[in-house]
Amino acid sequence: MKKISFFALLVCLISCQNKDADNYVDAIYQNGTIYTVDNEFSTATAMAVRDGKIIAVGSQDDIDALNLKADTIIDLAGQFVYPGLIDAHCHFYRFGQQLQQVDLVGTTSYQEVLDKVEAFQEKNNTAYIIGRGWDQNDWDIKEYPTKAELSELFPDTPVALTRIDGHAMIVNDAALKLAGIDRNTPFSGGDIEQKDGELTGILVDNPMELIEKTFPVDSRKADVEALMDAQEINFSYGLTTVDDAGLNRNTIELIDSLQQAGALKMKVYAMVSNTPENLDYYLDKGIIKTDRLNVRSIKFYADGALGSRGAAMKEEYSDRENHFGALLSSVEDFKKTAERIAATDYQMNTHAIGDSANVVVLKTYRELLNDMPDRRWRVEHAQIISPADFEYFDRDRILPSVQPTHATSDMYWAEDRVGAERIKGAYAYQKLLDQSGMVALGTDYPVEQVNPFLTFYAAVARQDTSVYPENGFNMQDALSREDALRGMTIWAAYSNFEEKEKGSLEKGKSADFMILKEDLMKMPIQNVPTLKVQATYINGEKVY
Amino acid sequence: MKKISFFALLVCLISCQNKDADNYVDAIYQNGTIYTVDNEFSTATAMAVRDGKIIAVGSQDDIDALNLKADTIIDLAGQFVYPGLIDAHCHFYRFGQQLQQVDLVGTTSYQEVLDKVEAFQEKNNTAYIIGRGWDQNDWDIKEYPTKAELSELFPDTPVALTRIDGHAMIVNDAALKLAGIDRNTPFSGGDIEQKDGELTGILVDNPMELIEKTFPVDSRKADVEALMDAQEINFSYGLTTVDDAGLNRNTIELIDSLQQAGALKMKVYAMVSNTPENLDYYLDKGIIKTDRLNVRSIKFYADGALGSRGAAMKEEYSDRENHFGALLSSVEDFKKTAERIAATDYQMNTHAIGDSANVVVLKTYRELLNDMPDRRWRVEHAQIISPADFEYFDRDRILPSVQPTHATSDMYWAEDRVGAERIKGAYAYQKLLDQSGMVALGTDYPVEQVNPFLTFYAAVARQDTSVYPENGFNMQDALSREDALRGMTIWAAYSNFEEKEKGSLEKGKSADFMILKEDLMKMPIQNVPTLKVQATYINGEKVY
Repeated sequence: MKKISFFALLVCLISCQNKDADNYVDAIYQNGTIYTVDNEFSTATAMAVRDGKIIAVGSQDDIDALNLKADTIIDLAGQFVYPGLIDAHCHFYRFGQQLQQVDLVGTTSYQEVLDKVEAFQEKNNTAYIIGRGWDQNDWDIKEYPTKAELSELFPDTPVALTRIDGHAMIVNDAALKLAGIDRNTPFSGGDIEQKDGELTGILVDNPMELIEKTFPVDSRKADVEALMDAQEINFSYGLTTVDDAGLNRNTIELIDSLQQAGALKMKVYAMVSNTPENLDYYLDKGIIKTDRLNVRSIKFYADGALGSRGAAMKEEYSDRENHFGALLSSVEDFKKTAERIAATDYQMNTHAIGDSANVVVLKTYRELLNDMPDRRWRVEHAQIISPADFEYFDRDRILPSVQPTHATSDMYWAEDRVGAERIKGAYAYQKLLDQSGMVALGTDYPVEQVNPFLTFYAAVARQDTSVYPENGFNMQDALSREDALRGMTIWAAYSNFEEKEKGSLEKGKSADFMILKEDLMKMPIQNVPTLKVQATYINGEKVY
Repeated sequence: MKKISFFALLVCLISCQNKDADNYVDAIYQNGTIYTVDNEFSTATAMAVRDGKIIAVGSQDDIDALNLKADTIIDLAGQFVYPGLIDAHCHFYRFGQQLQQVDLVGTTSYQEVLDKVEAFQEKNNTAYIIGRGWDQNDWDIKEYPTKAELSELFPDTPVALTRIDGHAMIVNDAALKLAGIDRNTPFSGGDIEQKDGELTGILVDNPMELIEKTFPVDSRKADVEALMDAQEINFSYGLTTVDDAGLNRNTIELIDSLQQAGALKMKVYAMVSNTPENLDYYLDKGIIKTDRLNVRSIKFYADGALGSRGAAMKEEYSDRENHFGALLSSVEDFKKTAERIAATDYQMNTHAIGDSANVVVLKTYRELLNDMPDRRWRVEHAQIISPADFEYFDRDRILPSVQPTHATSDMYWAEDRVGAERIKGAYAYQKLLDQSGMVALGTDYPVEQVNPFLTFYAAVARQDTSVYPENGFNMQDALSREDALRGMTIWAAYSNFEEKEKGSLEKGKSADFMILKEDLMKMPIQNVPTLKVQATYINGEKVY
């Protein structure tokens, strides 16, 4: 696809000594349909890029008229170009970490656990197999497993598989041997389980530390690989910015380091996890902004999740009497933290699922921000909102950040939890958009899949990939294709205070874009989930 | 130089589907003189490399007999190959940091300071110019400068230049403006100097913080660039491992991260700085060893330097009555730290210059290590040793780590400090070698230059680059060329506990090597300081 035009070559022979000249560019992309996602949602045919920035975008005539001298001319051959996608709410680093471990969530038998571990090791061949997520309550035999099968499958490689709640693990003989654990190993608190005078391989709570201490050497290898692996998968889906919803200082500094070294090319809007050390450090330091990193927000959890009935509801759950869920901190603590953040330039991005959590967050936000212009504090998920509470959202102060695939994942049981009335204010993306004039879209991966085309599809069709329900789930809150794309680009950028540098393909902005063979605005919606990205660019550099 | 042999190509067509085959290699280097620096100091003609390791080294016949299938055959065209050089004592990170600042040490006038700042900025064009090292006592006019000239030269770019002792700085108007400092700025402790009711631009002690707070955003950019820039310069001199003599945890973790990401290819033996936090963390964690990082030693300072008469001497300085220098910690504190380290697998690497500091260190080491095999605790510098104290050194427990360019830098005044007798035990590299059976060589850069050929030259010729003194300085302690090369390769590796993986070009070791056009063992010694490295390889990868 890459070709050097004779003209460019000729010009280069004459003028490449003077690359600083105003009309020199690195590349011209032409002969495509470029969805600029500017205010008018206009399309263009060609685009010129210099030093990672868009120099011009318009018709072929527009670009030709500029008389640019390009190093490379790229023929888009009729393909479609879109701004690089932004996932406004995901867990980029955690996703990468989980790529290195066996994911045992949802396994329905111990045999399935063993099969998954075996398949993982065939692919990864790690020196120490670490997994997590099994729950014997999901199995036919609802008892802790024993180590016999695990030791037989892996006589030499240590294996440690943590239960879904992190309070128990099953290990094999090799792991016990490495940790020097036998029947006489002393411990206090928890258990090293024995049956008939033999270790079963089950450890509960404190003794788990003896095993964890023998995990491979604490180099930064695993952390670096997590980020690099996550990046690769994200690029394959056209993502060029990720909003990581909760990071600690050491990870943020690692991301910054790898970006500065040119190894990590992904752009990251890092929400800082709400810990005392993080707040002390970052609120004092102020906003950190580089070409690829933006640290200017604190992530707070107001309540739990709807599926596990942890979301804080105003009225009892429809499927459990007298159960309301709960806030994860006192209203007072939440307000104190909010006040502290409001005194700085930071945003507060609060996870709020239930209608009670949402109204506490919304009221607190409004009280604090009412007189402040342009604070853009975010409500992450904004999942169930009482009809009267939508009005709290406004473009300058309080923004909704939502995940359309949550709607299509939860739709099977969400109405059971909240009933026919409250469901009308749940996953209500169009109402949020009507109120706010924008809505930022994300996935919450690894809770959902990385694939942003699932987000687009869920937002527009309100169906899952089994094309259920036939006519879509609560279609009054479906978004138009145009708005869905805005939500994944310019509005997500806006929610990051980055709309002046990315989110649309306009002169002066970063050359972050993806190329598809298909027209996302017109193709059959059922084909969107399986879309394949042809190429992804960040700052004009091809990264996929 | 790179060519694909017809044989290799043919073989590749047949068998490249099976690169795991035992006789497949990545590269064969042939038709050169390879100084293996093995026990016999033997030379070879050809070498085969697979997966970053040396598979075979020997005569062309030896290699041919193995019937290897190579991706690439590299014709050395008669050049000379040596093991990659190791600097056994340097400050890699600090050197990189200093590349980003204007170095004003040794300036002899304020005009020279201004000239250096101007030249630096022309080259670097930084947003905030930071410099350090001026000392008005070295100038004709021994008074603090004022900001007028600095503000005129840089009306818009802030400039802050710290005095050599770090207790004063001169800044320009742009820096004052950015920090919001005017005549009425309050402060406690130190001074914001005024003359005739105007700020002079001089700040002393506490108010300097107001300026430092406005230094550019605290991204990891500067730290990453420091390491990457330092690496580039080191590679150009054939260095493939550096022993950084004093690093904190955050820098060690940054180095690890960049190495894991493939950005930093330099191998680093990181001596951990002796701080309470570092000791708590690393002694508990134990040795950290990856393919490119080795954390297994604590750096301790026993005394100061000879030039400033800070080195701790048994008898008074020859050029200052009743002055003995001083230990930097009590003997008790030193012993306590040594005992704590001795209880772990870590080495203790102690800076000791004066004969008193050295004997305290040597006695303490011997008492603690006498019954322990293979501890290799290091005396860094081992600069002035009483005749009776050489016997403390021994290959298994106590190693000398010395810097030959210190001898040729200090020779102009060292005898003034210590007199005609004590100088015989100073910079006494051959005596140390006789005693220890090895000696590790380094530079202490940026105190000296990075160039390791200056080390080789100083060790062998005992002259500086002005070929002074005519017959060499204390030639009884000159090293042979062979021993000098061993000191920069295999013995340095030994002092790091790395002799099994690097330091010589032998089967099974890392393919870390450098290529010269010259024969270091035979060329005129006066031409050594200006040697140019042709190529540097780490783990078989060409890095220069």
